[in-house]
Amino acid sequence: MKPFMDKDFLLNTETARALFHDAAESCPIIDYHCHISPKEIWEDLHYNSITQVWLGGDHYKWRLMRCAGVPEEYITGGASEHDKFLKWAEVLGRAVGNPLYHWSHLELRRFFGYEGVLNASTAEEVWKLCNEKLHRQDFGVRDLIRRSNVETICTTDDPIDTLEWHEKLAADESFKTAVLPAWRPDKAMNIEKETWPEYIDKLGEASGVKITSFRTLKDALFKRMDYFSEHRCVLSDHALDYVMYAPASEEEIEAIFAARLAGSIPGEEAKAKFKTAFMLFVGRQYRARGWVMQLHYGCRRDNNVPMFDRLGPDTGFDCVDNSAPSVQTAQFLGALERTNDLPKTILYSLNGNDNAAIDTICGCFQSDEAVSKVQHGSAWWFEDHLEGMTNHTKTLASLGYLAGFVGMLTDSRSFLSYPRHEYFRRILCRILGEWVEEGLYPDDRDTLKDIVRAVSYGNAKKYFNFAEK
Amino acid sequence: MKPFMDKDFLLNTETARALFHDAAESCPIIDYHCHISPKEIWEDLHYNSITQVWLGGDHYKWRLMRCAGVPEEYITGGASEHDKFLKWAEVLGRAVGNPLYHWSHLELRRFFGYEGVLNASTAEEVWKLCNEKLHRQDFGVRDLIRRSNVETICTTDDPIDTLEWHEKLAADESFKTAVLPAWRPDKAMNIEKETWPEYIDKLGEASGVKITSFRTLKDALFKRMDYFSEHRCVLSDHALDYVMYAPASEEEIEAIFAARLAGSIPGEEAKAKFKTAFMLFVGRQYRARGWVMQLHYGCRRDNNVPMFDRLGPDTGFDCVDNSAPSVQTAQFLGALERTNDLPKTILYSLNGNDNAAIDTICGCFQSDEAVSKVQHGSAWWFEDHLEGMTNHTKTLASLGYLAGFVGMLTDSRSFLSYPRHEYFRRILCRILGEWVEEGLYPDDRDTLKDIVRAVSYGNAKKYFNFAEK
Amino acid sequence: MKPFMDKDFLLNTETARALFHDAAESCPIIDYHCHISPKEIWEDLHYNSITQVWLGGDHYKWRLMRCAGVPEEYITGGASEHDKFLKWAEVLGRAVGNPLYHWSHLELRRFFGYEGVLNASTAEEVWKLCNEKLHRQDFGVRDLIRRSNVETICTTDDPIDTLEWHEKLAADESFKTAVLPAWRPDKAMNIEKETWPEYIDKLGEASGVKITSFRTLKDALFKRMDYFSEHRCVLSDHALDYVMYAPASEEEIEAIFAARLAGSIPGEEAKAKFKTAFMLFVGRQYRARGWVMQLHYGCRRDNNVPMFDRLGPDTGFDCVDNSAPSVQTAQFLGALERTNDLPKTILYSLNGNDNAAIDTICGCFQSDEAVSKVQHGSAWWFEDHLEGMTNHTKTLASLGYLAGFVGMLTDSRSFLSYPRHEYFRRILCRILGEWVEEGLYPDDRDTLKDIVRAVSYGNAKKYFNFAEK
Repeated sequence: MKPFMDKDFLLNTETARALFHDAAESCPIIDYHCHISPKEIWEDLHYNSITQVWLGGDHYKWRLMRCAGVPEEYITGGASEHDKFLKWAEVLGRAVGNPLYHWSHLELRRFFGYEGVLNASTAEEVWKLCNEKLHRQDFGVRDLIRRSNVETICTTDDPIDTLEWHEKLAADESFKTAVLPAWRPDKAMNIEKETWPEYIDKLGEASGVKITSFRTLKDALFKRMDYFSEHRCVLSDHALDYVMYAPASEEEIEAIFAARLAGSIPGEEAKAKFKTAFMLFVGRQYRARGWVMQLHYGCRRDNNVPMFDRLGPDTGFDCVDNSAPSVQTAQFLGALERTNDLPKTILYSLNGNDNAAIDTICGCFQSDEAVSKVQHGSAWWFEDHLEGMTNHTKTLASLGYLAGFVGMLTDSRSFLSYPRHEYFRRILCRILGEWVEEGLYPDDRDTLKDIVRAVSYGNAKKYFNFAEK
Repeated sequence: MKPFMDKDFLLNTETARALFHDAAESCPIIDYHCHISPKEIWEDLHYNSITQVWLGGDHYKWRLMRCAGVPEEYITGGASEHDKFLKWAEVLGRAVGNPLYHWSHLELRRFFGYEGVLNASTAEEVWKLCNEKLHRQDFGVRDLIRRSNVETICTTDDPIDTLEWHEKLAADESFKTAVLPAWRPDKAMNIEKETWPEYIDKLGEASGVKITSFRTLKDALFKRMDYFSEHRCVLSDHALDYVMYAPASEEEIEAIFAARLAGSIPGEEAKAKFKTAFMLFVGRQYRARGWVMQLHYGCRRDNNVPMFDRLGPDTGFDCVDNSAPSVQTAQFLGALERTNDLPKTILYSLNGNDNAAIDTICGCFQSDEAVSKVQHGSAWWFEDHLEGMTNHTKTLASLGYLAGFVGMLTDSRSFLSYPRHEYFRRILCRILGEWVEEGLYPDDRDTLKDIVRAVSYGNAKKYFNFAEK
Repeated sequence: MKPFMDKDFLLNTETARALFHDAAESCPIIDYHCHISPKEIWEDLHYNSITQVWLGGDHYKWRLMRCAGVPEEYITGGASEHDKFLKWAEVLGRAVGNPLYHWSHLELRRFFGYEGVLNASTAEEVWKLCNEKLHRQDFGVRDLIRRSNVETICTTDDPIDTLEWHEKLAADESFKTAVLPAWRPDKAMNIEKETWPEYIDKLGEASGVKITSFRTLKDALFKRMDYFSEHRCVLSDHALDYVMYAPASEEEIEAIFAARLAGSIPGEEAKAKFKTAFMLFVGRQYRARGWVMQLHYGCRRDNNVPMFDRLGPDTGFDCVDNSAPSVQTAQFLGALERTNDLPKTILYSLNGNDNAAIDTICGCFQSDEAVSKVQHGSAWWFEDHLEGMTNHTKTLASLGYLAGFVGMLTDSRSFLSYPRHEYFRRILCRILGEWVEEGLYPDDRDTLKDIVRAVSYGNAKKYFNFAEK
């Protein structure tokens, strides 16, 4: 029996252990997609308690507690931080097979030096230990980042964002990690939302362009992209229901736009046409600017209306949307490729069934501009666990070029989530180790280590091509 | 090499063996969804031959024989019981990798004490052995149930059923197993069927309500639900193409109903609207009564018309329907949740690709009314085998709370099918054992045994909350 | 650690090794679906270089090179054969987990006796070794086929093909392998294509039937099927977006046909109706002639328009189409079954998610005309790797009758691809070995070897029932 989550966690062969400890472990982290707050980094936020860190905003943990029948009072409600932590510990202690079990214990080991097991009986001990550490001066979020060997962070930012915190951080010589903005214009695209006209006004203000048409919307976005470029942005990100392709003439799009300004919410077809036109425009811009286009899809959000009314979005009420037609994804990328306007692109579906479709779509649009110019993004959100990451990696290797993969990201709101990169690297080494020891690939350590370092770190560095600080 | 199907069948680690033999094996069975006949229990049916038991109505076995090219004469036709059994033995002997291989051998071991292998050469020996036992006095179906340590059985019953056999069994002190009805109102919902008007008349008679409208249909169902409640029913069950959500006004539904009574079969849209309204009504009722709502979907039935004409439904001509949109499932549950009317719910898809979608939908609608109030039902029918159950368990653990799972059911027409609970428990212990011995979860035997007992038995007991006999 | 790709490659148990070496290895190959040129066999083509063999037309390899960022010059462009090979070796050397890694090394071992590893450092050595061998007299394509122990080859042929090379080969006593035509009438069915009217004219000429209607199209096809039958054809093959079922009257189909001849491209609905009518017609013919109907679907082709314009079809720009509704597949087969017109059928989807749907559809249409009359074809194209083949085999075994499977085919354009049959057989023995050594099936070597020989060779021989040379 292997010991529980020791230094060789997940490394079930000698080859895996060698690859991880000799090649993967020391690689810096490039966390090219996450949701942490640059303001909190600038201010070097310190936490009051482990409850605040772990349960303050982590909807993964909230979901698990709800599945276990915990009253909402102990999740997002009025219970004390201490009691919330105890409930969490009790649930986690029995959450066998859940990735939170691994993530949480990795965080306890890496940040708090706790090598034991968290459950109902150890909850008080862990509560004390973590809080003591958190109250120390060197446990602010900058320290957490430094300690995690993070070289680059890309946050997720709205086009109207001032990027003031990114500016301050860029000017701060004392903090070595690059904190770069990433462009996420969902609010400008989601024409069907109630709040869209209001947002369009704000975007007009931020850009200094009066937005009265699709043409002027594009002008405004163009200006804001310039602004983001000046702040060293090199990635965009989009949350889509699915990657659609519903081509339409400029006139049609302008008509949809005008109707919307006049108060008419577009139907399904008009919505798809508008979003297609929007995505084709920004895609061309990304290509022109050398930005990477990230497309996240396959998620239906906010399914529980009473809880949405109470807690808002991103609180644990989302599910897999299994309706993405791969043909439209291929058509959308194909439309950009036809005019030589396809940017570097990363596709992420929340639906693991899409793995092979995505990998084969990627293979249709490669070029010598970059190794694996069109990429299948790391197993995402509900797929971000041992099974999901293993499936993702094996399918990518079978249908594409694993050695060119840009690897892991946290997609997280938490400053403690960097060990997910470690989790990913361990799984990568585990898979490679199994293949080698089964005789499916030669025991060529130099090549293997080179591949491990590339997927852990080097590929992302080359692919995103961040400007120096 | 492990011996073939010995006491440690499927238990490939020491941990798995300990968990199964020390915790799972002795748990009683709660078979909360099956298709056996309460009349046959009441009458304590005895069988003439193993052919009658095994091949009398088991469409799983019929399918396999057809796949192997066996003439229908030896399946449902006029061949002798002896010759049918020989054909079956010949096919089974070569059915490597098929769950029937395991189920059949478990049944031979548990009920007939036969520890050998069934194939063409042993067929005569097994034929004799089984028939000798079956002719004994203590081999009636009550004995088979007793011997299997079954605490509770829920049958599947039509709203118009008199439940007379359930009544008699309830009154019979000599038989300890509770045999409870479950409510399956498919015939009342399937408005598009030729036979619907005729059924509606029968339902009117059974309920004493003249059904002339959707409103009176609901009155009739309400009355029959009262009747089922009086007979200790706590579960409903529905067979749906997919879990649809097509909301409509009461007026629209009444118009569809009136048109149907006038002879007009509704089109796809009207059908979806009617079924949505039907399901919303019964869902609210289940919630009010504390019943569990079971939704089975992803199946297309009776695909072979000539064979349907010859043999009728449930004879082995069904297949996976891969068209269920997860968004509608989420919308349907969300509509009930919006008015605080969502009952405890179990979702089953015949399509294993739906696993992650279902697990994430479940996570959106939990509450403290029950541990895992909305559940992903056990791997069903075509998924009910080693691979399917393993995938189901791992996905559930990754995306939900495995320790809260209500576990296995037989969904069977056979009184010999209880070893499928054993099969499930062995697979559960196998998975847990692998995790523990790989260092992915601590070797905390007390917690592990507690989880095993909960999933094997305790969770179902709490979740369904059956009334005492 | 197992040695890299030695004689026991993929055989991870003693049972697997025994089954492969004692039963599978010596079975002849029946390659019942491929895309090699009968003319090249007749002419006994010799190659100039390994680049010509490997990179002359293999879009699998081209794709991988593009994923690795190799400039097109080194793929299909003007670089020298030597330099192309070096690029390929460099990419392959790092393509861990890709099936091309295994296929290429199997080919090096079986045809060139090279037991080493191909990568950037060994590229020159392998280049020389392979080219030396290829320049020998006994390295023509006939030798490659002989050496691979191929008993029967079925090529893929258009209805207008003269089959002259098949005729010549049939008359050549010196070449023992049967090279039979297979009927692929896609061009006659694809009414929406620009080139369809032109093709219909050619088909008219080839058949001596003036095609002016759907009825005369059927006459022409009938005549050409006679011609193919005379040339010992027993298989058809179809590439479909999905297996559709959109029934229509003869009048409707004639109207669609007439409109198309008048220049009007049919919309989605009319297209589906025409193709359904076409497929029902040919399906009935196949049944009458005892031909096997192969249906390939789930692929979207030619997604990259600029590359299509440059290189044409089948150059590596295809992807998985995930939109096939299983219900229509069942309806189409059911429509043929209703009139007792369903031929032996093999279903292949490029989408591995369809596995269970296909296996359960097959189970609905079996009969005693053949063992597994309706089959789930071998893991195809993007699924043709260790993971894909393992999933296919386990799902088939779980839901059908593995022992009745007709097994592997190459689907290849290359004369070196026969080791893929070996790859398949190794994976088959690997799976069986794991089951036996885990105690899931008895260690009954005779039965196991019999199953292995049947799936490797015997089933195909019986199922296709080829006429003797």
